[in-house]
Amino acid sequence: MNIESYSLEELENLCEEIRHEILRVVSKNGGHLSSTLGATELIVAMHVVFDSKKDPFIFDVSHQSYAHKLLTQEWKKFDTLRQFHGMCGYTKPSESEDDYFVAGHSSTSISLGVGAAKAIALKGEQEERIPVVMIGDGSMTAGMVYEALNELGDRKYPLVIILNDNEMSISKPIGAMSRMLSSAMASPFYQKFKKNTESFVDNFGEGARYIAKRMEESLKLITPGLMFEEMGINYIGPVDGHNLGQLIDIFQKAKKLGQPVIIHAQTLKGKGYDIAEGKEEKWHGVGPFDISDGHSIKKSSTKSATQIYTDALMHLAKHNEKIVGATAAMPSGTGLTPLMELYPTRFWDVAIAEQHAVTSMSALAKEGFKPFCTIYSTFLQRGFDQVIHDTCLMDLPVVFALDRAGIVGEDGETHHGVFDISFLRAIPNMTLFAPRDEKSFHQAMAFAAEYQHPCSLRYPRGSFTPTDLSESTPFELAKSQLLRSNESDILFIGYGNGVGRAYETAKELDEDVNILDLRFVKPLDEDMLRDLTTKHKKWFVFSDSSKMGGVGSAISEFLAKEKILDITLESFEYEDSFITHGNTKLVEESLGLLPTQLATKVKELL
Amino acid sequence: MNIESYSLEELENLCEEIRHEILRVVSKNGGHLSSTLGATELIVAMHVVFDSKKDPFIFDVSHQSYAHKLLTQEWKKFDTLRQFHGMCGYTKPSESEDDYFVAGHSSTSISLGVGAAKAIALKGEQEERIPVVMIGDGSMTAGMVYEALNELGDRKYPLVIILNDNEMSISKPIGAMSRMLSSAMASPFYQKFKKNTESFVDNFGEGARYIAKRMEESLKLITPGLMFEEMGINYIGPVDGHNLGQLIDIFQKAKKLGQPVIIHAQTLKGKGYDIAEGKEEKWHGVGPFDISDGHSIKKSSTKSATQIYTDALMHLAKHNEKIVGATAAMPSGTGLTPLMELYPTRFWDVAIAEQHAVTSMSALAKEGFKPFCTIYSTFLQRGFDQVIHDTCLMDLPVVFALDRAGIVGEDGETHHGVFDISFLRAIPNMTLFAPRDEKSFHQAMAFAAEYQHPCSLRYPRGSFTPTDLSESTPFELAKSQLLRSNESDILFIGYGNGVGRAYETAKELDEDVNILDLRFVKPLDEDMLRDLTTKHKKWFVFSDSSKMGGVGSAISEFLAKEKILDITLESFEYEDSFITHGNTKLVEESLGLLPTQLATKVKELL
Repeated sequence: MNIESYSLEELENLCEEIRHEILRVVSKNGGHLSSTLGATELIVAMHVVFDSKKDPFIFDVSHQSYAHKLLTQEWKKFDTLRQFHGMCGYTKPSESEDDYFVAGHSSTSISLGVGAAKAIALKGEQEERIPVVMIGDGSMTAGMVYEALNELGDRKYPLVIILNDNEMSISKPIGAMSRMLSSAMASPFYQKFKKNTESFVDNFGEGARYIAKRMEESLKLITPGLMFEEMGINYIGPVDGHNLGQLIDIFQKAKKLGQPVIIHAQTLKGKGYDIAEGKEEKWHGVGPFDISDGHSIKKSSTKSATQIYTDALMHLAKHNEKIVGATAAMPSGTGLTPLMELYPTRFWDVAIAEQHAVTSMSALAKEGFKPFCTIYSTFLQRGFDQVIHDTCLMDLPVVFALDRAGIVGEDGETHHGVFDISFLRAIPNMTLFAPRDEKSFHQAMAFAAEYQHPCSLRYPRGSFTPTDLSESTPFELAKSQLLRSNESDILFIGYGNGVGRAYETAKELDEDVNILDLRFVKPLDEDMLRDLTTKHKKWFVFSDSSKMGGVGSAISEFLAKEKILDITLESFEYEDSFITHGNTKLVEESLGLLPTQLATKVKELL
Repeated sequence: MNIESYSLEELENLCEEIRHEILRVVSKNGGHLSSTLGATELIVAMHVVFDSKKDPFIFDVSHQSYAHKLLTQEWKKFDTLRQFHGMCGYTKPSESEDDYFVAGHSSTSISLGVGAAKAIALKGEQEERIPVVMIGDGSMTAGMVYEALNELGDRKYPLVIILNDNEMSISKPIGAMSRMLSSAMASPFYQKFKKNTESFVDNFGEGARYIAKRMEESLKLITPGLMFEEMGINYIGPVDGHNLGQLIDIFQKAKKLGQPVIIHAQTLKGKGYDIAEGKEEKWHGVGPFDISDGHSIKKSSTKSATQIYTDALMHLAKHNEKIVGATAAMPSGTGLTPLMELYPTRFWDVAIAEQHAVTSMSALAKEGFKPFCTIYSTFLQRGFDQVIHDTCLMDLPVVFALDRAGIVGEDGETHHGVFDISFLRAIPNMTLFAPRDEKSFHQAMAFAAEYQHPCSLRYPRGSFTPTDLSESTPFELAKSQLLRSNESDILFIGYGNGVGRAYETAKELDEDVNILDLRFVKPLDEDMLRDLTTKHKKWFVFSDSSKMGGVGSAISEFLAKEKILDITLESFEYEDSFITHGNTKLVEESLGLLPTQLATKVKELL
């Protein structure tokens, strides 16, 4: 879309059209709504002043980039947003050359901007190109933002950072940065300055009062940006993020500055859709809904794994006051909200800060508490070193509850939780297990609450795959549960939600098979496995995890160690490639992982 | 040591004794010298005012904690510092109850302090206990410090943070934080304020000048801490970190504050040993040296892997100007110093900021550059999510050069580089390989420089184990090199420095064995392996890496996938436990990994 020649009025109309289209498609397909509505003018102004064909447009997390997608791709394609084989809900260079980077995890944008700025400097393209970064206030809490600002403030590459401050991240804003941005006047520095000023003025009369007043005003103007200025980065703001004319003017100035600059723009989340305006978490990411009343269209009839987690943790926390917990800015997504409300001194949202979450919870464990560190599988990747260094090396009883393990659907490749087994299994002192249904989840949680070492349990987005297999029995360390036992040579080994898939696959076969719920991938139930090697020779592994280093790999290692050579082992875990977005069933079908497809593979391998 | 009753003079004498003892032992055993000498008064003052029997004493990185060890453990034990079965060079609770946490990776201390403070609040022990954190200015660059400060400034737990500012981290101080601390007066905010003041004064004459002057002075005093104050944390400083009386006084005030407070203490690195005083990187971590002249006692006669890396990268960088690189505060340790000196616009120290290093280098790769991201194996754990999300998902040609892979010796359990294969192998688009000697290192680097996807190569601390096996041939993707081929049923598979160990082990055997240099653990040389399965049935894996998810695991996965059932596979990688510190040979002996020990195991398994 060639909008440089548009009048301001035309641009403002365009913003309305964009909002309308976003609302129409997101209400139909689901997606991220409120932050993207709030960022419309910012993105339109970006496209007026900068050129995404040459300037790196870097959107942090990038779920707020829908307006950018509408400005750079065909509108009809937007209709397929987040659908299988449709437009990705995040920026994606393979989809459009106007998308600079894949971005689905928070707070990478300024680092990318610094890298791009270094490249531009080396190529001598500073006259033609400048990176422009858009980042929300919620993303400002993660440490890597600060690492990038630290280098940027020192080396001073030209870089424009648009801070989209809607005074709320996904969840309630946490922390000092948020407070600083939203209410600069309450800052302790300002208070101290004011107090000093007053005492001077009392001693020097009216002339001094006038000077002090002027100084205070000048200070007031720059106070919100003090921290950035201190770091060596120019600060402009706060500015009205919905005043298109002013934004264009400021962006043009920033572009010419030749130095790093942060433009602090205040926006209203959900702007333009009054039902969502100013709302916090609820309208961040949504499923299909009715635009007229905002009501969700699809409602799941079965209980989600997250809901079961909440129930189980509520029960445990009620009876054991040593149980505490943390979420990294996902209180609702991880199901911790009711716990934070009921026990505000025991459950914390620490903001987007997985590293800090893991390490601070480790200290609580050292002090005799039992922390449930509740983080999506994909986001625990951010705290990997801390899990090794602060939890496992200290052998502390922190529980890592990994929601969204396996394929997560529409959020796609940046959000699938497929690596956790591979990266956690290699850590000494770590125990890994998984529930397969509601009852086993409660039992797994009871085990976790009592266990005195680091452990991690994983569970899927949405509901477990139901089965009519034997009832789950209480969890014991390194004990599997044999759910179906017979004379067949075939053994299906399921882990977590993989048990349901094993069950469904078994239903598609003509012959009966044995089904083992592995429960623990570390340590393995070696006695049971050893026994089963004598009875059944054709083993198949079912788990929502990466094959490399995953459940099948653990069993292969066991067989090699035991020098057991007569077992054929086939793992139906994920192959070694990133997995696309879309409806989970469609994605699984594309991977050949539907029960009917797996049954065919099993038959071929017999 | 009961020092509360000591007079100031006695305490000052104690500091001298401590310094003397540290110098004596470190000159003999090697260790961290200059930061720990500089921190002596700070630590003595900590022990006067706080009680490590109840107050959590949290040392960041903790290599500066030697004075603490001398104050809390038997002095004669300090003689065994960093030796096998001797005192750990870092804090370690299993060694002493006065050590609160293991800490060998930077910047975890404030998170631990926040966790401990939460626990103290929950237990209602605020009257009796308070966490006290000591952190160096170098550690302040890593993002997780900021994540912790962000929550701390918001929730305001009582916590004393002693910022040991010696104006230099391990390497030259990088970044805005460092500049802010060391030279607050140059800050842009201060400059702006000053300019405003001057214009006011010009208009209002002498009376105003006096007020302005006073204001400027008051501002000057608080400027270095502005950033902390902005974040909601009290700031005291800067104070002289060698003035024991003043330190005790300030610590006592801070203890009673009931709020989080940062005490900014300026110290001289190497204080008390004039050869090391004020020196930058050289005296941070040292081997045994002669106290009289500071000269190193042991000198290695063979070229270290790091030196080979430097040579190879110098050669490549000279011929290809697209080659760039980054280190995260380890320019000398990683061998990047000569490159940074010769090509200051292409090689960067980004400070302790592994996340930012990975992501910013990914952006450079996107722009057509060829980044060599040079990080110790153990520290890349900090950038794991960024390797997945920003490098591999984008399929960008970043090279991760992992120094210190395998057992690193005296630094011990926090520094051994044993997990990298396990956590990197599971990432799609990643290629993993390793050189085994100087020639193959140059060839591996040549391959890396041309390769157009993410890749990682690993190499040991110190020198490669020498062999007289066939000369290395150029690296080709997924191609191994068969170094010794014969009719024996035994196949030794070596990876990286494991080839040398396979060779040494073979020398201990009566019979000849085949030796394969695997070279690529991802992707595997499947053709070669398949061919070898038909010829040799007893396979042994040699690699300086964790067994779980490691090289043997990769080969197990391959055999399972191929349904090859007649190969016995034994991996001599590291078992599933953290590995202690000490001389590498002694540590390896304790693990049963010396060639003679391995040869015995091989014989038992035949």
